[in-house]
Amino acid sequence: MPSQPSRSLEVVPNPKPERDYLIDISCPEFTCVCPKTGQPDFATIRIEYRPDQHIMELKSIKLYLWSYRQEGAFHEAVVNQILDDMVAVSQPRWMRVTGDFNVRGGITTVVTAEWQP
Amino acid sequence: MPSQPSRSLEVVPNPKPERDYLIDISCPEFTCVCPKTGQPDFATIRIEYRPDQHIMELKSIKLYLWSYRQEGAFHEAVVNQILDDMVAVSQPRWMRVTGDFNVRGGITTVVTAEWQP
Amino acid sequence: MPSQPSRSLEVVPNPKPERDYLIDISCPEFTCVCPKTGQPDFATIRIEYRPDQHIMELKSIKLYLWSYRQEGAFHEAVVNQILDDMVAVSQPRWMRVTGDFNVRGGITTVVTAEWQP
Amino acid sequence: MPSQPSRSLEVVPNPKPERDYLIDISCPEFTCVCPKTGQPDFATIRIEYRPDQHIMELKSIKLYLWSYRQEGAFHEAVVNQILDDMVAVSQPRWMRVTGDFNVRGGITTVVTAEWQP
Amino acid sequence: MPSQPSRSLEVVPNPKPERDYLIDISCPEFTCVCPKTGQPDFATIRIEYRPDQHIMELKSIKLYLWSYRQEGAFHEAVVNQILDDMVAVSQPRWMRVTGDFNVRGGITTVVTAEWQP
Amino acid sequence: MPSQPSRSLEVVPNPKPERDYLIDISCPEFTCVCPKTGQPDFATIRIEYRPDQHIMELKSIKLYLWSYRQEGAFHEAVVNQILDDMVAVSQPRWMRVTGDFNVRGGITTVVTAEWQP
Amino acid sequence: MPSQPSRSLEVVPNPKPERDYLIDISCPEFTCVCPKTGQPDFATIRIEYRPDQHIMELKSIKLYLWSYRQEGAFHEAVVNQILDDMVAVSQPRWMRVTGDFNVRGGITTVVTAEWQP
Amino acid sequence: MPSQPSRSLEVVPNPKPERDYLIDISCPEFTCVCPKTGQPDFATIRIEYRPDQHIMELKSIKLYLWSYRQEGAFHEAVVNQILDDMVAVSQPRWMRVTGDFNVRGGITTVVTAEWQP
Amino acid sequence: MPSQPSRSLEVVPNPKPERDYLIDISCPEFTCVCPKTGQPDFATIRIEYRPDQHIMELKSIKLYLWSYRQEGAFHEAVVNQILDDMVAVSQPRWMRVTGDFNVRGGITTVVTAEWQP
Amino acid sequence: MPSQPSRSLEVVPNPKPERDYLIDISCPEFTCVCPKTGQPDFATIRIEYRPDQHIMELKSIKLYLWSYRQEGAFHEAVVNQILDDMVAVSQPRWMRVTGDFNVRGGITTVVTAEWQP
Repeated sequence: MPSQPSRSLEVVPNPKPERDYLIDISCPEFTCVCPKTGQPDFATIRIEYRPDQHIMELKSIKLYLWSYRQEGAFHEAVVNQILDDMVAVSQPRWMRVTGDFNVRGGITTVVTAEWQP
Repeated sequence: MPSQPSRSLEVVPNPKPERDYLIDISCPEFTCVCPKTGQPDFATIRIEYRPDQHIMELKSIKLYLWSYRQEGAFHEAVVNQILDDMVAVSQPRWMRVTGDFNVRGGITTVVTAEWQP
Repeated sequence: MPSQPSRSLEVVPNPKPERDYLIDISCPEFTCVCPKTGQPDFATIRIEYRPDQHIMELKSIKLYLWSYRQEGAFHEAVVNQILDDMVAVSQPRWMRVTGDFNVRGGITTVVTAEWQP
Repeated sequence: MPSQPSRSLEVVPNPKPERDYLIDISCPEFTCVCPKTGQPDFATIRIEYRPDQHIMELKSIKLYLWSYRQEGAFHEAVVNQILDDMVAVSQPRWMRVTGDFNVRGGITTVVTAEWQP
Repeated sequence: MPSQPSRSLEVVPNPKPERDYLIDISCPEFTCVCPKTGQPDFATIRIEYRPDQHIMELKSIKLYLWSYRQEGAFHEAVVNQILDDMVAVSQPRWMRVTGDFNVRGGITTVVTAEWQP
Repeated sequence: MPSQPSRSLEVVPNPKPERDYLIDISCPEFTCVCPKTGQPDFATIRIEYRPDQHIMELKSIKLYLWSYRQEGAFHEAVVNQILDDMVAVSQPRWMRVTGDFNVRGGITTVVTAEWQP
Repeated sequence: MPSQPSRSLEVVPNPKPERDYLIDISCPEFTCVCPKTGQPDFATIRIEYRPDQHIMELKSIKLYLWSYRQEGAFHEAVVNQILDDMVAVSQPRWMRVTGDFNVRGGITTVVTAEWQP
Repeated sequence: MPSQPSRSLEVVPNPKPERDYLIDISCPEFTCVCPKTGQPDFATIRIEYRPDQHIMELKSIKLYLWSYRQEGAFHEAVVNQILDDMVAVSQPRWMRVTGDFNVRGGITTVVTAEWQP
Repeated sequence: MPSQPSRSLEVVPNPKPERDYLIDISCPEFTCVCPKTGQPDFATIRIEYRPDQHIMELKSIKLYLWSYRQEGAFHEAVVNQILDDMVAVSQPRWMRVTGDFNVRGGITTVVTAEWQP
Repeated sequence: MPSQPSRSLEVVPNPKPERDYLIDISCPEFTCVCPKTGQPDFATIRIEYRPDQHIMELKSIKLYLWSYRQEGAFHEAVVNQILDDMVAVSQPRWMRVTGDFNVRGGITTVVTAEWQP
């Protein structure tokens, strides 16, 4: 059975929880829908975090980002939402989410939000 | 009312039908769904053509490409389908469609199809 | 009715006012007129800010930058003017405006101005 | 007195009319207005030609391109218009005009038109 | 059950056999073993072909290239072998295979072989 | 006799132990096997360290990295393992290991781990 | 009357003296003469400064840099001379001059000098 | 005694006159003076030729190009002049000269002239 | 025993002599000595050939190019010499040698020589 | 008489000793010999320093780096040796030497050493 888009992020145990290290994930294939015009938006989403007891499972990140495909979402809101969801599930030492959105009306927008306990 | 995805391409009169010239359009924001795995595919679609009596209206090209967003389509089939649809509507002197699909399983695929009367 | 250039920037509520995050907007299509020679100048304008209670609406930023199209403006003055106008309207936690002006007489000019309360 | 935008292209004698050679001019600072939406369009205009008895004067090319700044012009029409105007004035052995227009609605357009006697 | 490396290439029917078009596949993750030194070699393999009645299935190309991972193979031989195997299975109108091998001893090697009936 | 992959890293005396300096090594030819799918993964491994009494011998680094070729290893685990092994053998003043893994499922992962006494 | 090279830099009032902001000017067309060999040298000169009461007029910067065209000047001396001259005239809050000189005898030289009160 | 700019190109015997081969020389450090404004122009000059009995000596090419430093020269004229001078001295089987001139007034110019017997 | 520079190129049998294919080898680490000034020259040497009964062995190419390290050689002569030596030993269907020499006196030189029976 | 490779670095008086400024020199044409295999190594050497009473003469730097051409030298040792020699002669306020060595066995090495009094 093929995979489905899903808001449920999954975590697995961090193989080296005693070390404070960095994971930096980039997905250039993010797409959602502009809530104002109903038209598709495209972005590269980058997730940087320092894991504590858990790391986020790669396939579940893919399915999570896929779940925005049909959803209306403003640039600033979607980046903060991804950060909130991922922090809630993975409880990292530190996390930063960056959304680099394709040009619209001649203007490019990059939104960067950070979290630490 | 916001625009809707649509298979109906529209044309307008060619402002210089007596000259044989080239129009080269690129859309890096094409996405469809893999018919085998159900997962999203991403591509840049490039359309080059030499118009005859009509040129394709830019917004209608955008809505046409958008109409593939939820549809299952193999790489080779989708490029040939776009070429067939655009030739049928615009009846150009010559047309070439190129689909440059993002890496899947470590492999990138570019499909190029050409038409002339 | 088509949009019109306008000096009236509009704001909408910040979807995450409790978080200090960064919005980074780039417009490579800025043009004004050299007050000395009367000839067009071209620049990329970049606006970085940390919103407080409001974020600037994207379309109104486009119309605002468009309003300089027929106006005479020195490089140093225009960057400071954009910063002043945007700070006044959006009352951010921090803002920086950068104008990267095209080569004139073999010389390129970049002006960067920053504001914080 | 500062220069003014002008549709009058000027030519000067070709310094080497007995040789068939190539002149290739690029202007990345072309802007006109979309006749449909009233909003500014931006393009790089490239002019390649093989001069016969005359070459086009550089400053007059600049003023000519500048004259489109406030004018409504479709991509396909403006490139053909520039080609027609420049051929009429400079009567070259061969000429090609290319307009590479900035992305609009996620789509980039390049129009290329060629003339020979 | 996970996939296995395999020399068995698979084909599926060409969705547009009446048109002569081009498929261009690149795999930057090819690795084999140098038969002389026993050490790993790395290359990007590019396969361009004009399909006739069949197209090669993408996953089977991946498994086929994977099958060289433990095998000793000289640069010139491996490119010709891939071309022979792929022509035999897919019976194309035309095919070209290029292997761009990583630097060894300060020297880079690219091998390109072509087939037509 | 050809070299063999080996987990035994070798060190030689640091030619300038009284100076605190930086060695920065990059290997774009790292490959291991995904423990979940059994399929090959590819990465660039970068090792930066400030040597103390010993420096790591270059050929032994090559053989060490080669030893992962047939081994199952998660991204996060393999980077931490390389760091642990290299610190144990070379006892540096400081070390950082970065693994930049090729795109899988549209997602790129970079893992960076650092050690100091 | 055409412009002339000149050592006289001119300043105009800073349009925003109450703000501490940055002006960054680059001229890739600097040329002087090697005092040792008498042959031309070429460089890109970059001037970064934070203006106080005055900003340097752009055309006068061009004429000033042009004045080195026939003058013998060692790399290190010319960068310090430009910095001294520009500080004397514009009395900035801070200034940095960088000269990036073209390769001579297989060697590239960049000289960077900074001033603050 | 230091070298001097000179219009006298020198040739040496072609070491392989029986073979028709290509020499391709690029000088990014060409500068002359605009005859209209008196201001410096900058260009990259590229000379491609197929030598017959003689090849042009490299140092004499450098001194020849240097001789334009103080001379007024229009873009189109200077490229044709260099071609004429070099053909006269070296009597090649074929020669092409390209001058790629830096942007002036927002416009870049490339002039290409070719000669064959 | 370590390898030695050597003028003796070695060949091995072509694994696919019945096919006319292309081998393209690049060595960015070529150095010889300028016969006029005695100073080192540096170049990238590229060898493209269509093998007949033999292919050139990679290590022997490396040792052959290494043999020029202490030898005086003019740009034009060295490229023709490499072509002559490699044709004599490998008796190819076609060969082209390109030497791309580093900038000297602000001038870059590329020499390209071709051979066919 | 042509120049000779030489270990004797020469200095000249610093034209601006009262200012603390930066000189940054790059030589992409460094070559020495691997002491283990006897084969040539290639590197880019970068020297950054803040001069005190003297600056290093450019031609003598070229001859100094040239003197390594026939000498066996490990990567880590050669960078520290260059730093020691240059500090001894020029007695700077600060110096850093970086050696970026070409790939060997699929691995690139950069060594960076710094000195301050």
